[in-house]
Amino acid sequence: MKLKLLAGLAILTLLTACGEKAGSTHATQGQAASQDPVKTYNWKLVTSWPKNFPGLGTGPEKFAKLVDEMSAGRLKVKVYGAGQLVPALEVFDAVSRGTAQMGHSGAYYWKGKTPAAQFFTSVPFGLNAQEMHGWIHYGGGMELWQELYAPFNLIPLAGGNTGVQMGGWFNKEINSLEDLKGLKMRIPGLGGEVLERAGGTPVTLPGAELFTALQTGAIDATEWVGPYNDLAFGLYKAAKYYYYPGWHEPGSMLEFMVNKTAFATLPADLQAIVRTASRAVNQDMLDEYTARNNHALIELVEKHSVQLRAYPQDVLLKLRDLSAEVLADVASEDPMSQKVYASFKAYKENVMAYHSLTEQAFLNARSR
Amino acid sequence: MKLKLLAGLAILTLLTACGEKAGSTHATQGQAASQDPVKTYNWKLVTSWPKNFPGLGTGPEKFAKLVDEMSAGRLKVKVYGAGQLVPALEVFDAVSRGTAQMGHSGAYYWKGKTPAAQFFTSVPFGLNAQEMHGWIHYGGGMELWQELYAPFNLIPLAGGNTGVQMGGWFNKEINSLEDLKGLKMRIPGLGGEVLERAGGTPVTLPGAELFTALQTGAIDATEWVGPYNDLAFGLYKAAKYYYYPGWHEPGSMLEFMVNKTAFATLPADLQAIVRTASRAVNQDMLDEYTARNNHALIELVEKHSVQLRAYPQDVLLKLRDLSAEVLADVASEDPMSQKVYASFKAYKENVMAYHSLTEQAFLNARSR
Repeated sequence: MKLKLLAGLAILTLLTACGEKAGSTHATQGQAASQDPVKTYNWKLVTSWPKNFPGLGTGPEKFAKLVDEMSAGRLKVKVYGAGQLVPALEVFDAVSRGTAQMGHSGAYYWKGKTPAAQFFTSVPFGLNAQEMHGWIHYGGGMELWQELYAPFNLIPLAGGNTGVQMGGWFNKEINSLEDLKGLKMRIPGLGGEVLERAGGTPVTLPGAELFTALQTGAIDATEWVGPYNDLAFGLYKAAKYYYYPGWHEPGSMLEFMVNKTAFATLPADLQAIVRTASRAVNQDMLDEYTARNNHALIELVEKHSVQLRAYPQDVLLKLRDLSAEVLADVASEDPMSQKVYASFKAYKENVMAYHSLTEQAFLNARSR
Repeated sequence: MKLKLLAGLAILTLLTACGEKAGSTHATQGQAASQDPVKTYNWKLVTSWPKNFPGLGTGPEKFAKLVDEMSAGRLKVKVYGAGQLVPALEVFDAVSRGTAQMGHSGAYYWKGKTPAAQFFTSVPFGLNAQEMHGWIHYGGGMELWQELYAPFNLIPLAGGNTGVQMGGWFNKEINSLEDLKGLKMRIPGLGGEVLERAGGTPVTLPGAELFTALQTGAIDATEWVGPYNDLAFGLYKAAKYYYYPGWHEPGSMLEFMVNKTAFATLPADLQAIVRTASRAVNQDMLDEYTARNNHALIELVEKHSVQLRAYPQDVLLKLRDLSAEVLADVASEDPMSQKVYASFKAYKENVMAYHSLTEQAFLNARSR
């Protein structure tokens, strides 16, 4: 991963040397603009993922391609992998101050900036992808998210979804709550807090370090995403057991963020193009994970002899109870978190009631 | 509904009288085009739904708005409700011959034209919305759909999804398989064939006639969509019991269709805008249904005293077995149906295996 990043940086330097100037004004066939018919915009988009990482990293690349096509080249978006322009976890600050016009990341990374951000990716025992998108776009979520990011001069947009993730990779079996005690697991955010209350030791590590940490025994377990991504990271070489379901991230929605000042300089048609391309990518990423995860899982099980394990029911029940406690505590930290949690919780109760008669009832009837 | 349509027609006539000419060429602030900087396109989009019907009908209106905004007014799409320009079930022919440049409908209505079309909306015990979108965009579905529609000079695009529908409205309880015998139910397509094999009598009726047919006892039961739409139709006034889950349509994906010749006349940027706007609407409709169905269900139950009923498990099991028989028979009818069914079936087995560990396992763990 590190080698790849270095290679990426070298290529980047070459590209920059041959590069186009930002905001250049030149006529090209198929170009057009609102106020100025030949104005082109050259934007930077920084991400928290390795360049072109499957799903997470290819999402913003597809966004850039759609924007280029729809704008007939008037808005060019150059995508940077983590560390190429700014480190993975400095995306928020970089876009906020205008170093880049856009970013692609996960809102829960910004809990240190604003705690309520944790509700806008995925929370333990929260919403699956379909439910999350409903909350964001028709359940009041987006309005709250905009309010939350406004003080940072940022506009948030939904930016893809992984679906329900896997429970993670383990080098010991989890047969009871006792087995969680002392467990050193890489699990960030709210899931980590839940594990801590269950007696475990959550560890935060960037994706690129998971393999070594697991292999050397520095950690006993790690979660990442799902088979499609986990296979790419080779985690099966460092752990025996692959647990399900991913109770801690049941439908992680990624985010695009746009610098508000930069957005305001765009003519209305390019603004609509940015918004609509992000919406299309939000679905496209979920479609890709949905179609590809199982092929990767089959490869993991059949070729690499990975052993699938279900979390025991009493473990899941305990983790669920602890999750409710953690969320209530987060919500009590500040008024905005309280407001977001109230909206999230009311929506969740509603959608769960309906999905128990439809999505869930159907999946169960189909497989019975 | 008929009165509404007549009112719609009157408004339409007025609009046409004041109207713009198709293909007019005039400069407007914010306009732009590829080959010809002032060329505008005026397209017609015919639909199978009442004008502005919640979800199904507002989807194409949103599409038109997105296209207008992103193209800075260069592509204007005028949406027609069912019967305004062509009847609901003549959308396919109208777009095929170029009477309208686009249509919005459901592929399963065109089984008389090409039987394999039935696989591109929803099939009994098939895929839910998330799974369907995965098959279409990353599982080979779209390529087959394009092949299927090519002889009709049509390009298909995903155009929205209702999610798992409800099982329908009944005036008698379904306690056993015996209760399906002789049941006169409005249930179109493959679901109807399944009911027939279970001893029932499927009836096909347009949406606008459901209420009267149910109230007069001409039918014993009807399916429609889900609470959000069913409440709008007032079906609770004509039936006592509301059954779940909707085994017959577990994730109905609507369709946009574009006349291939008309599409080819568009510059590349407008082509990309049409494709991307449809993708955004495909998710937007599902988001809307997901967020709004439960509020409508609460109103049905609490305000209108609707009685919710689950299909008995043995009834669902029998319907599932019969569904597999019906699908296999449809697939044996022609080589293209065979090819589509083979792709659908292989994908379904794969995605079910993965979702049993993730989406389904999570929903069950969350509600346990």
